[in-house]
Amino acid sequence: MPPLLHDIAHLGHVELLTPKPDESLRFFTDYLGLTENGRSGDSVYLRTWDDYEHHSLKLTASTTSGIRRTGLRASSAEALARRVEAVEKAGLGVGWIDGEPGIGPTYLFRDPDGHEYELYWESERYRPPAELRPALKNQAQAYPARAFSVRRLDHVNYLAANAEANGSFACECLGGRVTEQIMLNDGTISAQWVHFAQKSYDLVWTNDWTSSSGRLHHIAFATDTREDILRAADIAVDRGVFIETGPHKHAIQQTFFLYLYEPGGNRIELCNPMSRLIFAPDWETVTWSEAERAKGQAWGLKTISSFHTHGTPPVR
Amino acid sequence: MPPLLHDIAHLGHVELLTPKPDESLRFFTDYLGLTENGRSGDSVYLRTWDDYEHHSLKLTASTTSGIRRTGLRASSAEALARRVEAVEKAGLGVGWIDGEPGIGPTYLFRDPDGHEYELYWESERYRPPAELRPALKNQAQAYPARAFSVRRLDHVNYLAANAEANGSFACECLGGRVTEQIMLNDGTISAQWVHFAQKSYDLVWTNDWTSSSGRLHHIAFATDTREDILRAADIAVDRGVFIETGPHKHAIQQTFFLYLYEPGGNRIELCNPMSRLIFAPDWETVTWSEAERAKGQAWGLKTISSFHTHGTPPVR
Amino acid sequence: MPPLLHDIAHLGHVELLTPKPDESLRFFTDYLGLTENGRSGDSVYLRTWDDYEHHSLKLTASTTSGIRRTGLRASSAEALARRVEAVEKAGLGVGWIDGEPGIGPTYLFRDPDGHEYELYWESERYRPPAELRPALKNQAQAYPARAFSVRRLDHVNYLAANAEANGSFACECLGGRVTEQIMLNDGTISAQWVHFAQKSYDLVWTNDWTSSSGRLHHIAFATDTREDILRAADIAVDRGVFIETGPHKHAIQQTFFLYLYEPGGNRIELCNPMSRLIFAPDWETVTWSEAERAKGQAWGLKTISSFHTHGTPPVR
Amino acid sequence: MPPLLHDIAHLGHVELLTPKPDESLRFFTDYLGLTENGRSGDSVYLRTWDDYEHHSLKLTASTTSGIRRTGLRASSAEALARRVEAVEKAGLGVGWIDGEPGIGPTYLFRDPDGHEYELYWESERYRPPAELRPALKNQAQAYPARAFSVRRLDHVNYLAANAEANGSFACECLGGRVTEQIMLNDGTISAQWVHFAQKSYDLVWTNDWTSSSGRLHHIAFATDTREDILRAADIAVDRGVFIETGPHKHAIQQTFFLYLYEPGGNRIELCNPMSRLIFAPDWETVTWSEAERAKGQAWGLKTISSFHTHGTPPVR
Repeated sequence: MPPLLHDIAHLGHVELLTPKPDESLRFFTDYLGLTENGRSGDSVYLRTWDDYEHHSLKLTASTTSGIRRTGLRASSAEALARRVEAVEKAGLGVGWIDGEPGIGPTYLFRDPDGHEYELYWESERYRPPAELRPALKNQAQAYPARAFSVRRLDHVNYLAANAEANGSFACECLGGRVTEQIMLNDGTISAQWVHFAQKSYDLVWTNDWTSSSGRLHHIAFATDTREDILRAADIAVDRGVFIETGPHKHAIQQTFFLYLYEPGGNRIELCNPMSRLIFAPDWETVTWSEAERAKGQAWGLKTISSFHTHGTPPVR
Repeated sequence: MPPLLHDIAHLGHVELLTPKPDESLRFFTDYLGLTENGRSGDSVYLRTWDDYEHHSLKLTASTTSGIRRTGLRASSAEALARRVEAVEKAGLGVGWIDGEPGIGPTYLFRDPDGHEYELYWESERYRPPAELRPALKNQAQAYPARAFSVRRLDHVNYLAANAEANGSFACECLGGRVTEQIMLNDGTISAQWVHFAQKSYDLVWTNDWTSSSGRLHHIAFATDTREDILRAADIAVDRGVFIETGPHKHAIQQTFFLYLYEPGGNRIELCNPMSRLIFAPDWETVTWSEAERAKGQAWGLKTISSFHTHGTPPVR
Repeated sequence: MPPLLHDIAHLGHVELLTPKPDESLRFFTDYLGLTENGRSGDSVYLRTWDDYEHHSLKLTASTTSGIRRTGLRASSAEALARRVEAVEKAGLGVGWIDGEPGIGPTYLFRDPDGHEYELYWESERYRPPAELRPALKNQAQAYPARAFSVRRLDHVNYLAANAEANGSFACECLGGRVTEQIMLNDGTISAQWVHFAQKSYDLVWTNDWTSSSGRLHHIAFATDTREDILRAADIAVDRGVFIETGPHKHAIQQTFFLYLYEPGGNRIELCNPMSRLIFAPDWETVTWSEAERAKGQAWGLKTISSFHTHGTPPVR
Repeated sequence: MPPLLHDIAHLGHVELLTPKPDESLRFFTDYLGLTENGRSGDSVYLRTWDDYEHHSLKLTASTTSGIRRTGLRASSAEALARRVEAVEKAGLGVGWIDGEPGIGPTYLFRDPDGHEYELYWESERYRPPAELRPALKNQAQAYPARAFSVRRLDHVNYLAANAEANGSFACECLGGRVTEQIMLNDGTISAQWVHFAQKSYDLVWTNDWTSSSGRLHHIAFATDTREDILRAADIAVDRGVFIETGPHKHAIQQTFFLYLYEPGGNRIELCNPMSRLIFAPDWETVTWSEAERAKGQAWGLKTISSFHTHGTPPVR
């Protein structure tokens, strides 16, 4: 595997599509505790309380659900140039466009499965208005304290016709590294978890059972504690938010999780990594077999079957 | 400030001196939950359950307390070469030595204050014996489940005659970045928190009120949850472990903390970062004034006076 | 000590006075997560999400702060009759009055210090309106999920010219028992913690340094977890709620605590008992000496001096 | 339903049978954190760190598994006399025997299903030896800090040919009250949760699908926090302790749970009640229908099928 470059600083933001924009917006603001930071056309910009950038979620009204685009911030102008060059060499570049609010020149590209990404370096630091100013100045914004309030957009899990081709692309063109993966009995790699620095994963590709392209398995938001997630489950039940599975702990990556569907149909994970980080610069990819997967999640919960059948947008 | 390079992958290990080796060893094994991994001369090698390397603490019997050396792992062979060159250019290099158990060629150097460091690239991955094999193979070792058990060595806080000179050295020669610092009313920088990748700090230098050199303020171990730290406080009281201050939450870096003295006199922090990481590649150093510091810690606890008078080794 | 009778089922509600009714109301609803359940004159009735009765807090606009009355529910009609008889025999009865909303015939009395109480048996079970209906029917009301949301009114701590006389009254006339107390070097009992069933304390009397009568030290609300209290501290700092001391763990009763002042000046404790209950029907009162108290709270925090100087209403 | 009498102070202890005494003992001491407090014949007496009595678990080597006897402490000598009279009147008394270590005159009786119980008033308060003395004197014993350490024996869940007959017996003869129950579509009460004071349940009877008598569904130990249970699950997996289901939250009683089998085959629940207590002296029994049960546990987890097939001792 190529070395970890840290040329991608972090996952910046995603654009999520929803056929039920009002209900989805309420889900993200009243339940997840995101804060609105502007609108444009059919889109609302939303931010978590620890986002140092303008937003991490662009919620767009659409005829269907799914993810339209993922934004990745480069670690420097040079890192951006290097990554653009690598992507273009791989023939997956689209070209430069104007950036979203708060974001400078933006390079558009696609992964082998067709998911759309943007890469950028310039990004305005968020300055909270008086009413959102935090008590501690090393925090981006006051804690919203609505329901529970997620700290950050944590990762994206894409469905892809061929997960491995996308993981390889992320390693070779973006400088990432596969920290964990699933290998089926026939040798197929059915999912790969890729990270860019010390977080143990940032982007994940999972094989799409429909062989469709460009679909989404889920986006995930991180909480500060596992107790936040247990409380989120209570509130979900009171408010009629659909719980797909959890809370429980993943065997892979050991993340504590709760899976929900937002009103637009997109799967949302609430996740807590405990203090787990990957420090080894020569980390050996952990490969899970079908037999190991059959043991279920960390504490024995069987993987729910809809995990293998629900993706967005739906496929006819 | 120079850019963040991520040439230092992470803090690897420290060598700690103790005049009470047996009691100190019991503190680290029976209370913090570290696992012994070999001995050599007057030293015992100890590891946390999530250490992928051979050890993260070398505990050495001595006439006094303090830190003898800090080990930093480079991100690659090239990164190691780059850092050695930078250190030598700064005139602070000592030279190559044989590595500690599990560690390859090692370059010795000093910070401007005289603290000793080692830099290395080659490192054997830890393979647990059968009785320490974890249920989940993406974990280095089974959770010891003695008292509470810390996940990792998290950071070192050094005392220095001039904190800023050392922070600058870490940035210029090691590729780190100052995420937070304290500036006194007269403009003196009295402490700097430096990180190497996404963890919000790895090494800290604090001005030594005695103007001594080479002393230690504390080493810190991270737990998975804040509840672990609350429980650790209960057990400390039952076992007569000295609690200096806490549990509480730092304003700086927002770390949840508990400060203890191990039997040899060294200050040990138990820390929990929640899910906080620094993602911004152009993070602006947060500077805390004396007036801000006077407000106390995050929830108002006044900084304890011994925090400004106790360091190791003691000074006559 | 007389036997524990369980004739008092539990602390039902308190009437709290505030010179800043609007700010106080916002504190209790927006910060503590109480739900308004009707108004009458200058008073607002408020309930926690797990209150099975009409309300647990009656917040009344007044020229000053303090507690006007405490409501205790009897365990049966017979228990009510027994307690009324005992109180009258002690010469501290006032007489029967009409009950508050949701509450039947009510007997008014005073403790030796002059604090006013009401005792009642009949109480309408709360039936939530549709929008507050919980998902689980063994819960009184949906979890409000505003900021953090306290589960119940937990206990009242009164200031009294002579704590012991009041504790004795609670044992002899109300059937309670002193679970813990403080004895000064001169033999004075300076505080007594009294319980009525398995909760380890329900009412507390502390000697008033001003030798005034009828004042309040604090009322306390219980949370589900310690993490709720840690989060409450974060939100307090963001919103400018005054934190007096904590979070920390009391040595006495081992309660995890955070002390705040609500805008009207009354001290409010957020408390978490862990799973601690008192089961022994012949529990021996635990007596703490001055020397033991000097060691500070459970983990060493010194008792804050305002704990001995701030009570409501203020004394000229 | 008859009124709640609080004549039974609390569940005192159980005698558990195991065909694998050495492994079972290690489970209770090394994993649950119980402390041995004497032996007698084939039995070992074990105590939790917050037991004020001599023991709460008597572990006895046997040819099979199951529960031999349950000890209940009366609230006073008079309460004991009242309960003995009521039990004798019901024709279920066995007679007086010598008490177990630390326990005075003991009255033996059976529930309608044949489970054996003992009732007693006199009980010696536990005095810890020096090495087990706690730092805080309002605690029975120092926290053992082995693995995780349960606070108390919390409740017993019996299998019975007719759950309702046993719940009624507990109410009429022991002064308890049914706080929650399950009613099948045909009107059968298939399980009843009975409490004696403020804890929301102490004894539970569940219909035995085999129509056997005297069997055990599970005994439960309470932890201080939900985090203790999450950690217990991690350690279970590392040590090969069988996890049947959980961690999750029950809809009934809202208890956070983890179900394990100890090596002797008995089902053990680790439970955390949060701060939930039942205060209403006129609590209306909450009745759950089959349709409600079909929704699964609080957050949607389906009840595991072995919950309806595994009991001890096994039935041929």
